[in-house]
Amino acid sequence: MSEMNQRLKGKKIAILMDNEGVEEIELKGPMQALRDAGADVHLVAPDEGSIQAFNHLDKGSSFTVDRTVADADSGDYAALVLPGGVANPDNLRTDVEAVSFARSFFEDGKVVGAICHAPWTLVEAGVLEGRTLTSWPSLQTDIENAGASWVDEEVYVDGELVTSRKPDDLEAFCHQVVEAIAAS
Amino acid sequence: MSEMNQRLKGKKIAILMDNEGVEEIELKGPMQALRDAGADVHLVAPDEGSIQAFNHLDKGSSFTVDRTVADADSGDYAALVLPGGVANPDNLRTDVEAVSFARSFFEDGKVVGAICHAPWTLVEAGVLEGRTLTSWPSLQTDIENAGASWVDEEVYVDGELVTSRKPDDLEAFCHQVVEAIAAS
Repeated sequence: MSEMNQRLKGKKIAILMDNEGVEEIELKGPMQALRDAGADVHLVAPDEGSIQAFNHLDKGSSFTVDRTVADADSGDYAALVLPGGVANPDNLRTDVEAVSFARSFFEDGKVVGAICHAPWTLVEAGVLEGRTLTSWPSLQTDIENAGASWVDEEVYVDGELVTSRKPDDLEAFCHQVVEAIAAS
Repeated sequence: MSEMNQRLKGKKIAILMDNEGVEEIELKGPMQALRDAGADVHLVAPDEGSIQAFNHLDKGSSFTVDRTVADADSGDYAALVLPGGVANPDNLRTDVEAVSFARSFFEDGKVVGAICHAPWTLVEAGVLEGRTLTSWPSLQTDIENAGASWVDEEVYVDGELVTSRKPDDLEAFCHQVVEAIAAS
């Protein structure tokens, strides 16, 4: 592989999700794009064991947890990616340690990519005031009520925060997340 | 049946949900309690045909739509009940007509019962400012950001608004919804 293709080499990236409910393609797409760019990707979830992914409301593949939230140190990671799936952030946002883990990346000024329903976890973390982002359309009001501006674009880059709306946006999302991490 | 048991006789009640994702027990419990009290219960959803219920994240039974949102007139109904299931209100809140239908019950001062994830539809309707309610715990921040107070109780009655947290609260929820409609 060329140096161009390995420009995230040496960087650890955390993909954070609940153990149940993540949208499979929103996990696999960014995981593959980050690995293709040479990054060391860890799947982080509240409980050890497996992650049950979904294709919309049907059960999909299982993935192995690399680090529990309790065992993961945000300081070890260059960036955070949050996939969607309606039940995933709905569960994750009730886990105080997981929300705190996500908040740390904002406090440290690191790149955070969030797609689809994932921004609920950022609403919970209280990090969206004054920011501009997109999401699955159902979250627009919750995001605006959290003090942010909502836009309807396939990908939106607000400083270190990269967001997209849905699986159809994955190509643009993965491209911008890799670009943002490479530039950070 | 005694007059006591039929005290909602002559009243039409709408149970509003999306065509996919409603928590089965949160539909069946209130539907049965309202019918036991003599009410004429209509299942209202955006599309005609069937409603696919879920038991948490597993598909459950199907139910037949009695009225589409477009064909239902809120003026015909004495009260509204909103069941949960994470994907149900997440879909429903993106349907402008459904949100408007729910809002009408607040404008007309009618009883509205909402359980679990259902209050997202009320966040979307913009009717929660200054109200006090409970819900599935993941919605606390979204409800507070909508200008309401959130409490952790099995059932909370704020004027015409009756709310509960989860399936375990159904007995108390159904009791208070029937009481509120009978008193209205």
